[in-house]
Amino acid sequence: MIMTVTLNPAVDVTYRVPTLRPGDVHRITGVERRPGGKGVNVARVLHALGVEVVATGLSGGPTGAWLEAELDRYGVTSSFVPALPEVRTTVTVHADDGTTTSLWEPGHPPADPAGAANALLERCRRLAAGASALVVSGSLPPGVDQVLPARLVAVAERAGIPAIVDVDGEPLRLAVQAGHAVLMPNRDELARLDGAPVGGIDEVLAATGRLCERGAQAVIATLGADGLLARTPLGVWLARPPAPVPGNPTGAGDAAAAAVAAALSATADPARPDWALIVREAVALSASAVCRPVAGEVDLPSYRAWRDLVTVERLEPQ
Amino acid sequence: MIMTVTLNPAVDVTYRVPTLRPGDVHRITGVERRPGGKGVNVARVLHALGVEVVATGLSGGPTGAWLEAELDRYGVTSSFVPALPEVRTTVTVHADDGTTTSLWEPGHPPADPAGAANALLERCRRLAAGASALVVSGSLPPGVDQVLPARLVAVAERAGIPAIVDVDGEPLRLAVQAGHAVLMPNRDELARLDGAPVGGIDEVLAATGRLCERGAQAVIATLGADGLLARTPLGVWLARPPAPVPGNPTGAGDAAAAAVAAALSATADPARPDWALIVREAVALSASAVCRPVAGEVDLPSYRAWRDLVTVERLEPQ
Repeated sequence: MIMTVTLNPAVDVTYRVPTLRPGDVHRITGVERRPGGKGVNVARVLHALGVEVVATGLSGGPTGAWLEAELDRYGVTSSFVPALPEVRTTVTVHADDGTTTSLWEPGHPPADPAGAANALLERCRRLAAGASALVVSGSLPPGVDQVLPARLVAVAERAGIPAIVDVDGEPLRLAVQAGHAVLMPNRDELARLDGAPVGGIDEVLAATGRLCERGAQAVIATLGADGLLARTPLGVWLARPPAPVPGNPTGAGDAAAAAVAAALSATADPARPDWALIVREAVALSASAVCRPVAGEVDLPSYRAWRDLVTVERLEPQ
Repeated sequence: MIMTVTLNPAVDVTYRVPTLRPGDVHRITGVERRPGGKGVNVARVLHALGVEVVATGLSGGPTGAWLEAELDRYGVTSSFVPALPEVRTTVTVHADDGTTTSLWEPGHPPADPAGAANALLERCRRLAAGASALVVSGSLPPGVDQVLPARLVAVAERAGIPAIVDVDGEPLRLAVQAGHAVLMPNRDELARLDGAPVGGIDEVLAATGRLCERGAQAVIATLGADGLLARTPLGVWLARPPAPVPGNPTGAGDAAAAAVAAALSATADPARPDWALIVREAVALSASAVCRPVAGEVDLPSYRAWRDLVTVERLEPQ
């Protein structure tokens, strides 16, 4: 079983309009609501792959109850800690002219942030005993100590399971120092953490190298249409999709995290994961998420077809 | 007691952003949620005026429960019929550059539309026995027979109380035919119903005249910065605010409806309401709603000050 941790889940609302015109009243032609937050998306992708998963994290209030009921309806087991007054909403407006506009609420602070963090750590310790990997993804609700993802990495380390971490900013910086983590930043997150622009592959190589020096066990930089670069104790690999995939890139990183978690948790020798295979899987699954209009879904036939078409190259670490 | 009927209530969500840019991701800096829908706004304004009010209509689901709990928290008594699977959300994005963009969900159809309409009519018959006026405002959820506002007018007529109707399109056309109603269309609603453009006061006079010929008891056309024009069996009055009021015009029509309902329900001789006073009150209260950033609220000191400053003119009916 893989456990995904979502500290700031969301009700993802999608509106369809002909055109979004600032200043106008729009009568929405299509509305969809689904459970969201990056960790929840990872859980849904793992479930679609047939991997046993438990979605945990912080939740609460009527919108939290709705989110958990919907996950249950999808067949995804959840075990959230009811510490938030309410789960936030994210609104995405898809216009028929092709533009996608997002409005992200910040999240609701727990009444007792320290109590919420401790209750979640306790829940994760318990779940980790039966888990083969831990994934922590996405933002934190206001008020929660930004060290929480790093402490979750420590829980995974003590349980002897890999920790895949897709967080940003200060929580990412603190997770680097925790060691043990497989970090999955995108280019922007990597640049913010490194303090320097990260454009070409040479800069990605250099920035991931500095992260590993600072404590990360491995860094898998997700590079959009350029694929991804994995810097690991066993070497550096660059995997590229066969061609640019048109579609919705939201959720591509979550699919990549799901692929890495699934592959690491199925590794026979945890000391020697087959990174060439892992990056291939991650790029193929990530590209298959781009085909789907909403985050948290993958197109399984595309995924199977693309596994053979991804190019994987071993680079010299610099 | 005045009863307000909201057939398609809403959870009104307001987001604040620096600028709304189509195609971008916006991290929301301020979020507010409040009970909405035009009839609910009327109820809140009446409550602010110290008038006893019961908010009824169709509701249901977790968002309906939230809406009713919030009204209770404001001190507004509600008596909704739980016939909807869910109450819709409306999102309003206020940008710091002054633009206001609205995204209105259409509403959720009741599982049994005819049963919902009958249950609501029964509830309204019961409430009308203790009421001094009925207000029906706003849209209908999908699937509900558009004659429902007209049937509510008939309920008010049988109970011997005035019916103030602020609806649009086909429900407005059917409410005209019901007779008895005091209709409160804005310029656009009037033009849609009349089938001809309604610009200047002469056109408003002509269009309201045709509505009264078709059965309306009275028509109060709300004209934004131009004030309002009331065509009644006792004459025609035009009331104008002393000066343009800067602010948010959403909810100005709801405040006008609240003023008309309060004044009609306090009229000593129902056959001879003091329309000159009623239009003065409606313009002053409506202008005091424009001062407030959100619909359903009025600024009582401005209202009191403006009552004396509104100009009221009696026109010759044409």
